[in-house]
Amino acid sequence: MIGRTVPLDPDRLFPADPETRKVARDLYEQVAALPIISPHGHVDPSLLVDDQPFPDPAELFIRRDHYVTRLIHAAGVPLEQLGLTDRSGSAATPTPREVWRTFCTHWYLFAGTASGYWLHTSLAELFGIDQEPHAGNADELFDEIQAILATDEFRPRALFERFRIEVLATTDDPMADLRAHDALAADPDFRGRVIPTFRPDSYLDPLTPGWVERVATLAEWNGSASSSYAGYLEALAARRGYFIEHGATAADHGVRQPLTVEMTASEAAALFARALAGEITAAEATAFAGHMLLEMARMSVEDGLVMTVHPGVHRNHSSDTSRRFGPDSGHDIPLATNYVENLRPLLERFGTNPGFHLILFSVDEASFSREIAPLAGFYPSVYIGAPWWFLDAPDAVLRFRAAVSETAGFYRGAGFVDDTRAFLSIPVRHDMSRRLDSVFLARLVGEGRLALAAAERIAIDLVDLLPRRAFKL
Amino acid sequence: MIGRTVPLDPDRLFPADPETRKVARDLYEQVAALPIISPHGHVDPSLLVDDQPFPDPAELFIRRDHYVTRLIHAAGVPLEQLGLTDRSGSAATPTPREVWRTFCTHWYLFAGTASGYWLHTSLAELFGIDQEPHAGNADELFDEIQAILATDEFRPRALFERFRIEVLATTDDPMADLRAHDALAADPDFRGRVIPTFRPDSYLDPLTPGWVERVATLAEWNGSASSSYAGYLEALAARRGYFIEHGATAADHGVRQPLTVEMTASEAAALFARALAGEITAAEATAFAGHMLLEMARMSVEDGLVMTVHPGVHRNHSSDTSRRFGPDSGHDIPLATNYVENLRPLLERFGTNPGFHLILFSVDEASFSREIAPLAGFYPSVYIGAPWWFLDAPDAVLRFRAAVSETAGFYRGAGFVDDTRAFLSIPVRHDMSRRLDSVFLARLVGEGRLALAAAERIAIDLVDLLPRRAFKL
Amino acid sequence: MIGRTVPLDPDRLFPADPETRKVARDLYEQVAALPIISPHGHVDPSLLVDDQPFPDPAELFIRRDHYVTRLIHAAGVPLEQLGLTDRSGSAATPTPREVWRTFCTHWYLFAGTASGYWLHTSLAELFGIDQEPHAGNADELFDEIQAILATDEFRPRALFERFRIEVLATTDDPMADLRAHDALAADPDFRGRVIPTFRPDSYLDPLTPGWVERVATLAEWNGSASSSYAGYLEALAARRGYFIEHGATAADHGVRQPLTVEMTASEAAALFARALAGEITAAEATAFAGHMLLEMARMSVEDGLVMTVHPGVHRNHSSDTSRRFGPDSGHDIPLATNYVENLRPLLERFGTNPGFHLILFSVDEASFSREIAPLAGFYPSVYIGAPWWFLDAPDAVLRFRAAVSETAGFYRGAGFVDDTRAFLSIPVRHDMSRRLDSVFLARLVGEGRLALAAAERIAIDLVDLLPRRAFKL
Repeated sequence: MIGRTVPLDPDRLFPADPETRKVARDLYEQVAALPIISPHGHVDPSLLVDDQPFPDPAELFIRRDHYVTRLIHAAGVPLEQLGLTDRSGSAATPTPREVWRTFCTHWYLFAGTASGYWLHTSLAELFGIDQEPHAGNADELFDEIQAILATDEFRPRALFERFRIEVLATTDDPMADLRAHDALAADPDFRGRVIPTFRPDSYLDPLTPGWVERVATLAEWNGSASSSYAGYLEALAARRGYFIEHGATAADHGVRQPLTVEMTASEAAALFARALAGEITAAEATAFAGHMLLEMARMSVEDGLVMTVHPGVHRNHSSDTSRRFGPDSGHDIPLATNYVENLRPLLERFGTNPGFHLILFSVDEASFSREIAPLAGFYPSVYIGAPWWFLDAPDAVLRFRAAVSETAGFYRGAGFVDDTRAFLSIPVRHDMSRRLDSVFLARLVGEGRLALAAAERIAIDLVDLLPRRAFKL
Repeated sequence: MIGRTVPLDPDRLFPADPETRKVARDLYEQVAALPIISPHGHVDPSLLVDDQPFPDPAELFIRRDHYVTRLIHAAGVPLEQLGLTDRSGSAATPTPREVWRTFCTHWYLFAGTASGYWLHTSLAELFGIDQEPHAGNADELFDEIQAILATDEFRPRALFERFRIEVLATTDDPMADLRAHDALAADPDFRGRVIPTFRPDSYLDPLTPGWVERVATLAEWNGSASSSYAGYLEALAARRGYFIEHGATAADHGVRQPLTVEMTASEAAALFARALAGEITAAEATAFAGHMLLEMARMSVEDGLVMTVHPGVHRNHSSDTSRRFGPDSGHDIPLATNYVENLRPLLERFGTNPGFHLILFSVDEASFSREIAPLAGFYPSVYIGAPWWFLDAPDAVLRFRAAVSETAGFYRGAGFVDDTRAFLSIPVRHDMSRRLDSVFLARLVGEGRLALAAAERIAIDLVDLLPRRAFKL
Repeated sequence: MIGRTVPLDPDRLFPADPETRKVARDLYEQVAALPIISPHGHVDPSLLVDDQPFPDPAELFIRRDHYVTRLIHAAGVPLEQLGLTDRSGSAATPTPREVWRTFCTHWYLFAGTASGYWLHTSLAELFGIDQEPHAGNADELFDEIQAILATDEFRPRALFERFRIEVLATTDDPMADLRAHDALAADPDFRGRVIPTFRPDSYLDPLTPGWVERVATLAEWNGSASSSYAGYLEALAARRGYFIEHGATAADHGVRQPLTVEMTASEAAALFARALAGEITAAEATAFAGHMLLEMARMSVEDGLVMTVHPGVHRNHSSDTSRRFGPDSGHDIPLATNYVENLRPLLERFGTNPGFHLILFSVDEASFSREIAPLAGFYPSVYIGAPWWFLDAPDAVLRFRAAVSETAGFYRGAGFVDDTRAFLSIPVRHDMSRRLDSVFLARLVGEGRLALAAAERIAIDLVDLLPRRAFKL
């Protein structure tokens, strides 16, 4: 059905024009082997503490990757057949091999997608598989991968070294104990740097299910009254401190719109009380959450945590799927996003504050040239986040570079973030980013817009200087 | 003024890079001669029933094509001079030859436009004209075309066969008798498949002029009371059934925003009554129309008609032009369009319903990567409509492919639709689409992102499998 | 740090593909030496009256160019260190040489930006500098440029001739006396055409600080009562007449949204009275300003001034920076912009009025294919403004061409505007535009979409016919 034997092209992602390709390849070769700095992602740190073999190909590549499951779901395959647990009960769980077969049968869906590129490259580079999966070779591939997973070289720590990961940031609940991070830091046999990220969304927005309980947990830990707005702020600041003690350099915020709202402490306290009493309106809750985003910026100014904002996503668009499979099951959908007016209160207060870092991500491409680059081209605090999620793909990355660089240059960026739950895909994602930046720079060189020496310097800085500086690593 | 002799380039639309061009050409050659499936358009079926010669070049290429007339109008030529009938009376109608002369004099306006490409290619391929029209050759070209139109090979049915049209869908008023479709189906000499499409907009939105009368016509046909909301729904369902009996597979919906609104039957009935009484407010009417769009989805789930939605257009932007020349006179202007929140009620109810097909079109490019591809990449019901109207042009099509494919791959698409009133432009439009898809695929092959064998399979599927599947043909 | 010696590439901005490059170069050579028509910009005309040497490199390239200062500010350098005057007092002003050193140290920030391209090209072409500035050569470059600036060939008038500027439009306050324009027109030694542009924003929007005083000045000049709405309109019309007498062909309007509002004269007069009394609400003021934009269109219809609209910018985003450094200090940020609904009242009244010219600019790329091109593709009055401000850069210009041309062709454009305060950058900006249009046309030729002869004609018309026609020059 789909072409079968597909060896990895060493010049993959490079453009067809021979001159540009040559320059791109030369630039890429300078950065291909540099260590990986991964300042934002979703890998479970206990993976590295336990250092157990990955269980099977389905667990590794499919079940936990909603980029993969959503597209097979769109083809009509229920999520439970891909190994997701249906919380409403009932459905028999397929075996990993069955999940893998379903995946292989639907492999053709991924042609041209970012996931297809990552999967194909990972299979080829890590497992030496140069065939495209299909129904006919599913079992064979499963066994082949399974055998390799059982070897010591495929334990998470061995891969961590082989991938040359220098820093790996995880994303964590504010009340997380961070024991895995401690264990790794204390382990003389593990030399990587694995750091937590403070992600307080569900503690800030009263409309999030479970908010009242979370506020109570915070208060209990803090020894303050659950009903005290001042205690709530204190507890949040203290938990940020706890994260900093455990290595965190950043706090991450996922919001529908990057709304920030000025209000007095007494106004905020009144809304907090109404929220605890379950009496808050949706508009009030939105305002309160917007105020809390501003408070998080204030705390970042005070404690130095880099503030990253990932806005513009309607989470859990399908209620039924959410109810059955929980969050992150593939139906978060981007929205038109307004940064300029929503972030103004925050930037009015902290935009030029030395030491404050605000990294803005976007899944609304229209905002790149219109809002993100102009903001980062003036405010010293604002850094441009890498194209994220649906835009973390070859053509989208090049569109992003073209959209922001002419206004903001290369030095207002924050480097690449892989943002992945899939540990094995980390190197291929960073490699893709390095290839694409080389392609972009090579084009500017070819068009007489950039000296080759400058391009070489920039290629390295994009991988090294920029993430270190923006994320304070 | 403009270059004169312009023979058709066999490699037209292919990129300059020789390697990519070669792959594109090879892919294109595989699909160039495949039958045309045209699942959405505006050709008048009586054209094929009557099978009369096309009257003249102005009728054929200008008067009825608002893509053409609007751009000459923008250059300051009144629409009546292009042969449009001014309903406010008075103006003397120019002869077809005069209209043609005006067109040729303004031919330079079309350089670089989609219409220019279609016109140039049609003139060359169908009429063997390798000169660009201008004032000096207008009469000669008119006579040349006129002579060819009089031949039997240029009768509509002969062209239908020559164009290799397998399926041609028309767009029809819900109360249309569909006699022309019946006649074609019953005619043993005509082997094509010409099917109607149910287009109920003006029966659903109380703000459309004539809505009350249309509701009355529906009720009369149905034998129900005109004032009965239940009867109104019944009649709509019955007319859908009538269309299905006459071969329809789809219902088409053109709306300003793809708003869908949940309300109870009694709420809807109350608004229906207020609308009939002329007492409905604009906001209520918008809500009612949004509810009716949801009802159409419910009926599609029940009767199986594919639901296509063409939103995001401010129709009849110039009131004076509308009054004088009616709708479709060239001043429908796109708008920023929100699919994610507007369609949520519909997708909550039917998004994962097996057998329900919802094809989303857009003229707001920002929505492609942000909303359309993510929705189609999760909901099994959602298919991505081809870039439409102002975006049905070479560069726009390639931007579209780049915007959606990385998220949704190639198999969430619904194939190409020509959406044309201009029968003669059907083959060149489909040919353009096939060339451009070949260009896009060839680039991925050249960048090592897609195996050639996969590209070959996809090129064929885009032309054959995808429209058949999405439109249930 | 950054590559050092960077001679100017004669083929800069041309694409890598050799065939396309050759065609682009040929097209460019036809237009490279054509006179410059600059119908919109911000050069101070007294520069040409006085004809004094430019004082120093910092004054010339840095202090007055907020494209340059904003990006160095984003890197953490306070604006006062770049020579901007802090109105809040205190800070010691750096010497021009110190400012220049700071600039050279931060030169690497401009890699890949439009400003970097203009600066590099200007330094090379005008001053023969083929080195990239850096801390180490800052003093040497300063001295070199300074010496050249002292020569007679670098007086403004000599450069005006050398640049082959045929028309230069300035942007002026409605109450400006236009003496500099008169002096130039009367000077037999100066043969250029330097014309004013009527820019009334701050007289139309009651929320602009100082509006009441400006209205009083208008009334005083007009001899009408300051409280008379009719007198206010009369005075505006009379000042437009004054500008026309002094050579103006256009009125320019910078607004947040291009809102136009119909209201009766008595409604407008009531709002005018409330505004003078300081009692107007923000919503009323917005409506009044929207009404005044409509009135400006009416006056344009009457007096023939071309109406240019530059909407979609949140001016002075950082209040503190505004307070200290005034407007145009680098933190105006674009916004999503709606033309279709906002401009409808205006287009309903004047859209097809012969002789009325409305040139629409945009800094929201999403609007190009969605709104701007479709509007200009129907309304004879609407012309497409060049990509402006943040979008006046190589990739953005090519995106703009691709976005508008397929719908509106090439002849609905208004030519290039440099919109610059930086006199020395005028030729390089126009040269960049000519190169990019040649690149775009060459691609269409290569793709078989445009005959070479047509491309040659269009390349010339874009530089000559289009700005002359649209701006009535």
